[in-house]
Amino acid sequence: MSMHLRDVATPALVLDRDLLARNTARMTDHVAARGLRLRPHMKTAKSIDVARYALAGNFGGITVSTLTEAEYFAGHGITDMLYAVSIVPDKLDRVAALLRRGVTATVIVDSPGVAAAIAAYGAARGMIFPVMIEIDVGEARGGVHPESKALMDVGEALRGADGARLCGVMAHAGQSYAARSIAGVAAIGADEARGAVLAAHRLRGAGLECPEVSVGSTPTALHGPVCDGVTEIRCGVYMFGDLFQAQIASCAIEDLAVSVLATVIGHRRDPNRIVIDAGALALSKDRSTAGMPLDAGFGLVLHETGEAPRALLRVDRVFQEHGVVEMPDPDLLAAFPIGTRVRVLPNHVCMTAAMYDRYHVVAGGDVLLDTWDRCNGWGTPAG
Amino acid sequence: MSMHLRDVATPALVLDRDLLARNTARMTDHVAARGLRLRPHMKTAKSIDVARYALAGNFGGITVSTLTEAEYFAGHGITDMLYAVSIVPDKLDRVAALLRRGVTATVIVDSPGVAAAIAAYGAARGMIFPVMIEIDVGEARGGVHPESKALMDVGEALRGADGARLCGVMAHAGQSYAARSIAGVAAIGADEARGAVLAAHRLRGAGLECPEVSVGSTPTALHGPVCDGVTEIRCGVYMFGDLFQAQIASCAIEDLAVSVLATVIGHRRDPNRIVIDAGALALSKDRSTAGMPLDAGFGLVLHETGEAPRALLRVDRVFQEHGVVEMPDPDLLAAFPIGTRVRVLPNHVCMTAAMYDRYHVVAGGDVLLDTWDRCNGWGTPAG
Repeated sequence: MSMHLRDVATPALVLDRDLLARNTARMTDHVAARGLRLRPHMKTAKSIDVARYALAGNFGGITVSTLTEAEYFAGHGITDMLYAVSIVPDKLDRVAALLRRGVTATVIVDSPGVAAAIAAYGAARGMIFPVMIEIDVGEARGGVHPESKALMDVGEALRGADGARLCGVMAHAGQSYAARSIAGVAAIGADEARGAVLAAHRLRGAGLECPEVSVGSTPTALHGPVCDGVTEIRCGVYMFGDLFQAQIASCAIEDLAVSVLATVIGHRRDPNRIVIDAGALALSKDRSTAGMPLDAGFGLVLHETGEAPRALLRVDRVFQEHGVVEMPDPDLLAAFPIGTRVRVLPNHVCMTAAMYDRYHVVAGGDVLLDTWDRCNGWGTPAG
Repeated sequence: MSMHLRDVATPALVLDRDLLARNTARMTDHVAARGLRLRPHMKTAKSIDVARYALAGNFGGITVSTLTEAEYFAGHGITDMLYAVSIVPDKLDRVAALLRRGVTATVIVDSPGVAAAIAAYGAARGMIFPVMIEIDVGEARGGVHPESKALMDVGEALRGADGARLCGVMAHAGQSYAARSIAGVAAIGADEARGAVLAAHRLRGAGLECPEVSVGSTPTALHGPVCDGVTEIRCGVYMFGDLFQAQIASCAIEDLAVSVLATVIGHRRDPNRIVIDAGALALSKDRSTAGMPLDAGFGLVLHETGEAPRALLRVDRVFQEHGVVEMPDPDLLAAFPIGTRVRVLPNHVCMTAAMYDRYHVVAGGDVLLDTWDRCNGWGTPAG
């Protein structure tokens, strides 16, 4: 039975397998050419099927943003993962369950108190938790500064611990999203690497083991300089790309692998506009392209085939289940009668994809190959 | 086994049952006092357990925003529902399946072409689709204007149809969200009712049946005038309330029934701030309180108990899994050490709740009574 996008109920999340394959191969090659290891971040994709593309040619370790992702990927045979959000003692039971399954589930800390609590928790159970120290390289979100006393305090809390093992430092220069030139991203990438390497150097100077130095974001992974001492790159959104990333030189619009399939459900003149069945829930309310050269509203509207219409169309307003697209002229309006399918490219694919429980995977335009599940949310995954 | 919120992994969606009961009873009483029927809109709650509260004392019909909701509620025994987003021919198979189950699934149209397509589809299958005509009463989203020729064209497409039955008109004055006074909301409510009644009057004048006149939004349901000719009120967000609704006089902040339970995962000085494990996915990126008297950032932060801290705290910045809360002084910072639980009140509860697959239902502060599932997304519900 051949399947087509035509048979999929809208709104639906569409993933182009060939673009995914191209995007993942490109980053794998790029990181390998820099002599580094790539630990793909699965926070955007949340799918084992996507992970298989991202892991092709790489060492097999991943990054995750939730314990739900960690448990889901462990259930699919991934045995090396970095949970890249600060751990708290309440969450150690779930990490311990992963370790007992034979999964190297590394946690991150930026607090001496939490580091000591992990060590005590592990010692009480005869377990050893792999721990990395998070370094703040300028984003001011989590982490300790590389020059700080706090860094050494966290390191000391892990020295000689029975229940925890310091295995490195990690940093994420999320401020690269605010850069507006490749040179700007490169400078931030240099800061990211320098800060992480400095932190590792200080820990080692105090006699602590610190084998790994993990850094990354999609922009800095692409445009950052090669820095001695970095061992690993982490990034995630490169697998799909989005309209925001396309405007900070992480990809071209032609690389965007994920879109929302929607149907025209309303058609009006005076003024000319269409209404589609993809609104705030189907697209998210992310407005990260606001103020950028291409302000895409709540998403850029393409024909069902993925081709661009002859004038730029965007979702100008969203309601919970409605998106309104202003049409520049009546002739273009006439090309989108009620029932027409369209594709909407997302501003921020991490947010948009999170509204769906599966991908509809296509190749060759509208031939539907498969559906791939996503592991959303924060609960324990089914199965 | 007694259960407490303390045992729930964060981030998690919390619903206070007693506030839900109070909010739903208040609207039920208010609409009954206006001599009208209430058809609760389940787009916000997406839960049969919440629907039972909303339906208590009412006639039993609901409003839905997706076919997934329609199928889910039909599976839970609801037999009267209005699908309040313009139908398109591609979606009639799912509606037909509901009708065959004995569910009165009413669809809405604003196009003569779609009205004719429904009639033809029904006639070909020996079925009769209940249809309402959507009236635009000023929001400029969907619908035909009450004075328009288009209204009569849609009505004519249904005249004498074998496969469809015109059962009324419906309108939604979503522009009430932009009003900033009760008098402003009342005026919009009057427009909403007047437009819908006028449309019904014109259809009847042409000899068409038009028994129902359905209107509503939470603000106009509360503050709109009583208008002769309206038969039914639809609204949904009143069940929970949110920070936006509290600022347009739909509720008080003390009425807000839904919050996000989160954990402090980071703690910094210079500047004083905490990081919580509720970010853009756990809260949504809705910023509907921007520019309002209380700009709550991405949500208002309370103590775990639901009590307000001594200074106003809000989620100032979000990342995918991190929320950053700036603290006004070191003493308040000291009250939120790592591991502390907090509750975050949402700007727009429809968006925030959609990020979760269940509610953790509490009574008496932190006693966990139950978990209630939600039917998110657009696929066919499981079971």
